[in-house]
Amino acid sequence: MIKRLAGTTPTRSRAVAHNGIVYTVATAKNKSAPLYEQTKDALGQIDATLAEAGSNKSRILRATVYITDMTRKPDMDRAWDEWVDAANPPQRACIGVTLADRDLVEILVTAAQ
Amino acid sequence: MIKRLAGTTPTRSRAVAHNGIVYTVATAKNKSAPLYEQTKDALGQIDATLAEAGSNKSRILRATVYITDMTRKPDMDRAWDEWVDAANPPQRACIGVTLADRDLVEILVTAAQ
Amino acid sequence: MIKRLAGTTPTRSRAVAHNGIVYTVATAKNKSAPLYEQTKDALGQIDATLAEAGSNKSRILRATVYITDMTRKPDMDRAWDEWVDAANPPQRACIGVTLADRDLVEILVTAAQ
Repeated sequence: MIKRLAGTTPTRSRAVAHNGIVYTVATAKNKSAPLYEQTKDALGQIDATLAEAGSNKSRILRATVYITDMTRKPDMDRAWDEWVDAANPPQRACIGVTLADRDLVEILVTAAQ
Repeated sequence: MIKRLAGTTPTRSRAVAHNGIVYTVATAKNKSAPLYEQTKDALGQIDATLAEAGSNKSRILRATVYITDMTRKPDMDRAWDEWVDAANPPQRACIGVTLADRDLVEILVTAAQ
Repeated sequence: MIKRLAGTTPTRSRAVAHNGIVYTVATAKNKSAPLYEQTKDALGQIDATLAEAGSNKSRILRATVYITDMTRKPDMDRAWDEWVDAANPPQRACIGVTLADRDLVEILVTAAQ
């Protein structure tokens, strides 16, 4: 069975759960904030979505963090390090890309339920 | 058991299926077409590959859409919205990157069988 | 059960295994080497990590290869083609991005145990 959590756009889901795995993505709601705040914001949404899907950050398997300015990576890392469950750290990759809107960060997460 | 569907290059598979999950990727065949047409083309190939692997677009869990020009994202979104199963929308992320050849879009899909 | 293999940073894992799937990532240790050598280096680390997690390259389902200079893709392809198990090729995508440090390549792998 596939369970889908609706997002803001009808043609995409905010999260999808299947066979014990949750797939989700988040960007910041406040897109005028700088990278540290946008990262905190996006990670807070990950928390909320994982809770809704019966998971939590201690069960994240993989996170892929896309940022628009690699020279600011320390700001993202700071928000990550403050947030992460250090007893259960995910496999993570950080990639510099272009994002939509004024997003400075977008975070893809694969978690176990 | 791991099942692999051959692509055009012997050192890569077009799709791999394992434990009820299909992993696949597609770009457009006609690389001189603009983004809307390339997206339709790539999504058509996703349909064909998923069918071959015993899945279909209503069972997509996650899609990651890489495009080369984020200012053209509305063209990709239009092709996506026309194509998607709106009753079963995937979790999707759209990322601006550089692609090989004259590809304007490359789509990674994870689907349930 | 989730098994995590520690990396060099306490807030991230080098690899995570869950329900028969291994999620891992690698960059080159020698970051002053050119792309061909960095790719060989990263692929060698993938081999070592997969072995530690009870898998190997013949069981890779998906690989996403991020490189910083798409015009040098043939150098990455050469290292890939020399390394891959051609009887069991993964689904692969190659994406041009910005990476941290002096990394020229970063490789994300999803493998079956």
